[in-house]
Amino acid sequence: MRVICTRCGKEREGMEVTCNRCGGPFKLDIDLPFSKEIRLNFPYIKDWVSLGEWNSPMIKGDLFYKLDFMNPTGSYKDRGSTTMISYLKQSGIKEIAEDSSGNAGASVAAYGAAAGMKVSIFVPSTARGNKVRQIQAYGASIVKVEGNRDDVSRAARESGLYHASHILQPHFRDGIRSLAYEIVRDLGWRKPEEVYVPVSAGTLLLGMYEGFRHMANEGVIKEIPKIVAVQTEQVSPLCAKINHVNYNPPEKLTSIADALVSTNPTLLPEMLNAIKDGECVTVSDQEILEAWKILARKGLLVEYSSATTLAGHMKNKGSNNAVLVLTGSGLKTLS
Amino acid sequence: MRVICTRCGKEREGMEVTCNRCGGPFKLDIDLPFSKEIRLNFPYIKDWVSLGEWNSPMIKGDLFYKLDFMNPTGSYKDRGSTTMISYLKQSGIKEIAEDSSGNAGASVAAYGAAAGMKVSIFVPSTARGNKVRQIQAYGASIVKVEGNRDDVSRAARESGLYHASHILQPHFRDGIRSLAYEIVRDLGWRKPEEVYVPVSAGTLLLGMYEGFRHMANEGVIKEIPKIVAVQTEQVSPLCAKINHVNYNPPEKLTSIADALVSTNPTLLPEMLNAIKDGECVTVSDQEILEAWKILARKGLLVEYSSATTLAGHMKNKGSNNAVLVLTGSGLKTLS
Ligand SMILES: Cc1ncc(COP(=O)(O)O)c(C=O)c1O
Ligand SMILES: Cc1ncc(COP(=O)(O)O)c(C=O)c1O
Ligand SMILES: [Zn+2]
Ligand SMILES: [Zn+2]
Repeated sequence: MRVICTRCGKEREGMEVTCNRCGGPFKLDIDLPFSKEIRLNFPYIKDWVSLGEWNSPMIKGDLFYKLDFMNPTGSYKDRGSTTMISYLKQSGIKEIAEDSSGNAGASVAAYGAAAGMKVSIFVPSTARGNKVRQIQAYGASIVKVEGNRDDVSRAARESGLYHASHILQPHFRDGIRSLAYEIVRDLGWRKPEEVYVPVSAGTLLLGMYEGFRHMANEGVIKEIPKIVAVQTEQVSPLCAKINHVNYNPPEKLTSIADALVSTNPTLLPEMLNAIKDGECVTVSDQEILEAWKILARKGLLVEYSSATTLAGHMKNKGSNNAVLVLTGSGLKTLS
Repeated sequence: MRVICTRCGKEREGMEVTCNRCGGPFKLDIDLPFSKEIRLNFPYIKDWVSLGEWNSPMIKGDLFYKLDFMNPTGSYKDRGSTTMISYLKQSGIKEIAEDSSGNAGASVAAYGAAAGMKVSIFVPSTARGNKVRQIQAYGASIVKVEGNRDDVSRAARESGLYHASHILQPHFRDGIRSLAYEIVRDLGWRKPEEVYVPVSAGTLLLGMYEGFRHMANEGVIKEIPKIVAVQTEQVSPLCAKINHVNYNPPEKLTSIADALVSTNPTLLPEMLNAIKDGECVTVSDQEILEAWKILARKGLLVEYSSATTLAGHMKNKGSNNAVLVLTGSGLKTLS
């Protein structure tokens, strides 16, 4: 499968992280027939580095809940880490740097460990808490960087280690196609009317979108379901564009949805394209908290950032034939 | 399916928690043909209260690892909570008491919430930490009881609420048969040579044993695999009996395997029967910590109590054709 720049169409030459010509991000060109044997849609992986990811349960209550927090490291990120790390391993890469103090860092640390790689996770100097402890438990080194989120990314990029960025590496986003395939499969090879996802850097939205697009192109579903992106009021660059409102991020982010922090996401142009037939909803902390409580009282313990989907669905008066993707485990945020 | 006293054989009359005649525990009499459609082996459930439990991944490395921490509340207990709570719900019970400040309490709280029950979880007055917070997140009431573990159980039993004891309720243990079925299915309907499980109150050992016995009786496997129970040096009443050594529990339990605390388990006679062709191994805190680290460095983050299985396998110089049941998520014990 060809790997091409999403902006200028140039083909990737080797393992460069962004396009040599225009600096844009890469993506995989999905030009293969669809297989119901889901892993066959990722033919570029010869030997999976696997921790039991994918095939999360879909349960039906008033709505459909896709329990993606039931992945091995407790978040949907494992969908992308398995493909990215498998690909990097078979490309001969043995030492990697990633920048994330959250679920992505934990997931890359786990899969990196499973692949026998030396993993360094770059985090802001202020980072602490369970996700940082989780990263360390898997044996990764934590590298603390002074400055803002961009400074942390730059430090990882310029570290001399291979930059296994979950945001930029095309094989990370590509693994998230599996989510779209599973949603359609779980519903008996039918598409739902709506799918709700939290959006920050956009890897979940973009990866899932590619999966739906593949199925629509191959005639598995007639059209892509309506995708509803949910963002917090504080961090809503995508919603601002979609809904034509002004957006100025606050000086300091204080939302309880603390995994959704990309105020100026690199992948914004790509997201605008993916969501053009969808919607974007913003939710307040109070709405998130209320939604979180409703989920917990059903026995579904997620992190606040994941409860945004139910908050968005309630605010939107969404369809009953909607899938909420519950992305992160509440077990990480109990203390 | 008949429910009978394991000690005197008397049939259960109604919803009594222990035998009216001898005080013994009940179990289900598994007298049905085996079905590869696993849920069909639980025909007494008409309407499942489900949170996406069962079908945890089995991954193969040097050994087989059954990732049972990938159940909805983060432990294997969900295997039993789904059957117990489904059964209690269809029996018309709406308010329950359970005693456990750990994984069982959290699991029963979640499934009770999913069933719309009012749940009270009785815990020692000193209980704290993430598992207690998890219980509360699901909306259950925490009832603190002064005294030792037996005092807490008694308070739940005498509370006037229905005692949904994960230890005594036969439909809790019975749900754990599913683990044996899945292990054999995951190996292509073959039995492994050995299966390692941590043992405290014995519900995991006994439930799994019944599943293997069912398959052996029905000819799905030729014989029951060798079951290796693992206990800590501090809490090893089963190993003491099996290996004919003296056992005196310490005044205060300090082992890092803090989910394994049953120094004087009610189900000990039943366990002795289940393990008669198996083995029991005790492991030290240092051995547990070393095993925990090996697992984490493979990307498998479990709680210390679950790492006992690898510690036991290492100590035992176990077979390569061994399944280690990894029972509890390390995400609960990061802080
Ligand atoms: C739990 C959770 N949900 C949703 C998201 C959003 O995903 P993305 O950044 O790919 O938009 C994240 C990202 O960190 C997350 O951790
Ligand atoms: C993580 C974990 N593993 C193993 C066990 C042992 O199970 P049992 O008490 O049924 O013997 C427990 C019991 O609490 C547990 O929480
Ligand atoms: Zn380009
Ligand atoms: Zn009896």
